[in-house]
Amino acid sequence: MKLLRVGTTGAERPALLDADGVLRDLSGLVPDIDGALLADDAALARVRTAAGSGDLPVLDAAGLRTGPPVARIGKVVCIGLNYHDHARETGAAVPEEPIIFLKAPDTVVGPDDTVLVPRGAEKTDWEVELAVVIGRTARYLPDDDAARAAVAGYAVAHDVSERAFQIERGGQWDKGKNCETFNPLGPWLVTADEVPDLQSLGLRLWVNGELKQRGTTAEQIFPVAEVVRYVSQFMTLYPGDVINTGTPAGVAMGQPEPKPYLRAGDVVELEIDGLGRQRQQLKDA
Amino acid sequence: MKLLRVGTTGAERPALLDADGVLRDLSGLVPDIDGALLADDAALARVRTAAGSGDLPVLDAAGLRTGPPVARIGKVVCIGLNYHDHARETGAAVPEEPIIFLKAPDTVVGPDDTVLVPRGAEKTDWEVELAVVIGRTARYLPDDDAARAAVAGYAVAHDVSERAFQIERGGQWDKGKNCETFNPLGPWLVTADEVPDLQSLGLRLWVNGELKQRGTTAEQIFPVAEVVRYVSQFMTLYPGDVINTGTPAGVAMGQPEPKPYLRAGDVVELEIDGLGRQRQQLKDA
Repeated sequence: MKLLRVGTTGAERPALLDADGVLRDLSGLVPDIDGALLADDAALARVRTAAGSGDLPVLDAAGLRTGPPVARIGKVVCIGLNYHDHARETGAAVPEEPIIFLKAPDTVVGPDDTVLVPRGAEKTDWEVELAVVIGRTARYLPDDDAARAAVAGYAVAHDVSERAFQIERGGQWDKGKNCETFNPLGPWLVTADEVPDLQSLGLRLWVNGELKQRGTTAEQIFPVAEVVRYVSQFMTLYPGDVINTGTPAGVAMGQPEPKPYLRAGDVVELEIDGLGRQRQQLKDA
Repeated sequence: MKLLRVGTTGAERPALLDADGVLRDLSGLVPDIDGALLADDAALARVRTAAGSGDLPVLDAAGLRTGPPVARIGKVVCIGLNYHDHARETGAAVPEEPIIFLKAPDTVVGPDDTVLVPRGAEKTDWEVELAVVIGRTARYLPDDDAARAAVAGYAVAHDVSERAFQIERGGQWDKGKNCETFNPLGPWLVTADEVPDLQSLGLRLWVNGELKQRGTTAEQIFPVAEVVRYVSQFMTLYPGDVINTGTPAGVAMGQPEPKPYLRAGDVVELEIDGLGRQRQQLKDA
């Protein structure tokens, strides 16, 4: 299933994109798409049955904003340098184990919402990423099968990053990762059963129409199940938590000088096979 | 005012410790102590009036658990190496600007709740910290006065840290800061008007009755108002967000070998002048 949330910010309603690409209203069936729903097999089964019946009310998609596909996200865990080609372009060594950092849930916006270039920013960069959405509490998972069982589904994430804040301003990456609007998510949460080819998904990102990132999850140093298993050894993952699993090559930081960092007016588009497409315009904060 | 939340985990009710040290029930007056309340001047005024009247119902404190004093925390921002004496003991240079990292809100527990030593932990360490609780949305604050106006109050925080995970496992500190139960908070949220001597508060921490940390906020490299102003240049702070402002000298990592890291069975007690006292027993996760 492709689950999504549509409407104005803070007032989104749950919806579903059916097999024919028709937008269907779920608000009569479930209160929202959040960790509570994703952990509730019976409620998800009701949604699935209703989706199959063709009886769900049709929503007019015209002019309707798409919000993040998950409400009340508890935390956004990010994996750094998780693609061989991206590690090469940044000149970094291949990590021996996953690098973990955090984004606050309040950085998450809809897939087509405005992204703000922070005041004082010098090096605002793009990163298309495969996001994992957790469906089961995950704590010291023993193996990859347990990790896969903890995943509700997948989505496109844009891990916007301000490199000067991240790297040149003392200490930890979080400083350049938590600016407001820095984590567009969606359009859809695609349930795990519909993403069988998890380690061969194509990821693409354009800036002002020019293709900048063209990667595949086959280049991941630590595959998705290993990432989920690994993170669960250090923190407990809860339904509705999100993991951004890293970005492939092609970010601005990896390009020759003068590096083409983002500015107000730029348009970024990104997509992952089967998971949909985002489009953001940059503005000054 | 001293605001707190009492009851079993997830079912805490709002309460107030009055001027005579009597626990009073606020649940007839406000739904909870959270960002929505802290941003609501009228509701806070009602609480203040009721507290002064002496008419609030008395709660029997005996056997009552104290939860974290704030519900639905959005993010926990932490400042690293913010005390001159702590920077010296760890051999780190004094930072030129604040180091920022994040803890997930799900690490927050009550002040006397069990703290779990993570599986595979080698170097679980203590850190008593002054926590700031935000009361107004704070975004690109211009100066210290604006920063002070954004603060609802203060609390004791225990920024529990696993040093091997934090420093020896690749990359970013967050890996050793986000284990479950790693952020006891409380007992109280003391409103800012009752903490006039913010930069001369004594902080103390004991392990198994032995005094380990005995610091003062006078040693802070970046004072509280500067920290809040600074953080707001990189991320937007929302009512109910928490900032842990760093720890003074005396952590296990700063002591001679063999360093006395925490183990199951240890008891940690910590307090800050005027902000109350915590007591946690360590257990294995």
